[in-house]
Amino acid sequence: MITSSSNSQIKNMIQLKKKAKERSLQDVFLVEGVKMFCEAPKERVCKVYASAGFCQKKEHLELLQGYDYEIVSDAVFDSISDTRTPQGIICLVRQFHYKPEDVTAAPGGRAPLCMVLENLQDPGNMGTIFRTAEGAGVTGILLGSTCVDLYNPKVIRSTMGSVYRMPFFYTEDLHQTLRGWKRDGITLYAAHLKGKNSYDKEDYRSPSAFLIGNESQGLTEETAALADRYIRIPMSGRVESLNAAVASAILMYEAKRQRS
Amino acid sequence: MITSSSNSQIKNMIQLKKKAKERSLQDVFLVEGVKMFCEAPKERVCKVYASAGFCQKKEHLELLQGYDYEIVSDAVFDSISDTRTPQGIICLVRQFHYKPEDVTAAPGGRAPLCMVLENLQDPGNMGTIFRTAEGAGVTGILLGSTCVDLYNPKVIRSTMGSVYRMPFFYTEDLHQTLRGWKRDGITLYAAHLKGKNSYDKEDYRSPSAFLIGNESQGLTEETAALADRYIRIPMSGRVESLNAAVASAILMYEAKRQRS
Repeated sequence: MITSSSNSQIKNMIQLKKKAKERSLQDVFLVEGVKMFCEAPKERVCKVYASAGFCQKKEHLELLQGYDYEIVSDAVFDSISDTRTPQGIICLVRQFHYKPEDVTAAPGGRAPLCMVLENLQDPGNMGTIFRTAEGAGVTGILLGSTCVDLYNPKVIRSTMGSVYRMPFFYTEDLHQTLRGWKRDGITLYAAHLKGKNSYDKEDYRSPSAFLIGNESQGLTEETAALADRYIRIPMSGRVESLNAAVASAILMYEAKRQRS
Repeated sequence: MITSSSNSQIKNMIQLKKKAKERSLQDVFLVEGVKMFCEAPKERVCKVYASAGFCQKKEHLELLQGYDYEIVSDAVFDSISDTRTPQGIICLVRQFHYKPEDVTAAPGGRAPLCMVLENLQDPGNMGTIFRTAEGAGVTGILLGSTCVDLYNPKVIRSTMGSVYRMPFFYTEDLHQTLRGWKRDGITLYAAHLKGKNSYDKEDYRSPSAFLIGNESQGLTEETAALADRYIRIPMSGRVESLNAAVASAILMYEAKRQRS
């Protein structure tokens, strides 16, 4: 049992919790909680850390069988946990390496439905968009290089497991990637103040992608200029904009509604 | 200028930031940031606290004219702020006291569209639902007594100002209130696993209310039993549920789409 927070594995876990660069170098990310552990693809789980308290239950110990695991004292476990009420289990999972074309490759020859996130900063928004995207049947998610790190523990938690199943790609050159998509016949829709058509007046049954910008600044002008169509989510009262995850959800579910 | 954090006003602000009971006793809540301050109904603002740094700009000082305000040293200001990068302005605003009927009284004799939140716990979700509800033209929001306090600073911030404009009511007896709504001809819709109809196959143009439950447990059985119709938001992949604010947004915007 690891009982000291100066243990090298524990020190490393704390680095991995805090630093995107360290996660990238070691090609892993942290996954916390029973549900997220159980949903993790088994072949990607490198190591499991369970608290002494967690291991007191027989059914918990059984969950750990077949994994490379370490038991950690409760106090030390709390130091690697990212939650206020730790469930007692954290694992290290190998990062995903999708190819750019995975994001647009809809199974069964269906028309792709994609999300493009530019400079999204809030971890909760990012994770919630992944979760909703899986629910809405989105093909994949393209991420601008300045978006929050997907492997941030708060993002991972908010995905509720969708991170294991939703293809995504961080592009170094968002504009070049989008120009390629346009050549491939994907229509780019930007929710934008310039939008004349309400979002529900467009037809999303052909290959489509929604462009979503930063929480406070929205899309950059350069990215918005690449859109084929500007759309508008109508807002009553004095509301000027919607939360990025909410706006994404409304658009993705309208596409799903039309496609069903 | 207030320069000591043992100043009685500062001590009181810290109590008000932390404790719902204290906010209720004093009948006020904290509003932070320039935009939220500017949108606050002037007659409800009791007191403004601005940091010394904030007051160095002439246009900032002008914003304070006509208000009862105090200047606070930057260090002391940080102690009352609820954000990591304080904007330098916090005000005390008088709480709202709507009547239960305000939640269902749609202007112009239109059919009410209402939200009912039972035991919602996440401040960000609650605030986001208020913001989206205003955007979707919702009439008012009914809150079960175990919901997170609306005047929690994180909720207030997430409303992005909708808290000033969206009627709401905390009911001590949710079931009794809902039975009254049913007698008044409001159809209660519950997003529920029992739901057979997809949410977009119902007609929300007549008086309607959506019931939303706790983030992990959903609606209690007793509350779900009061629903007139169970509806389902279809989910692809392995998604079992959506974030509460996302599910609310999809339902509210479907109602808005049908009503437009």
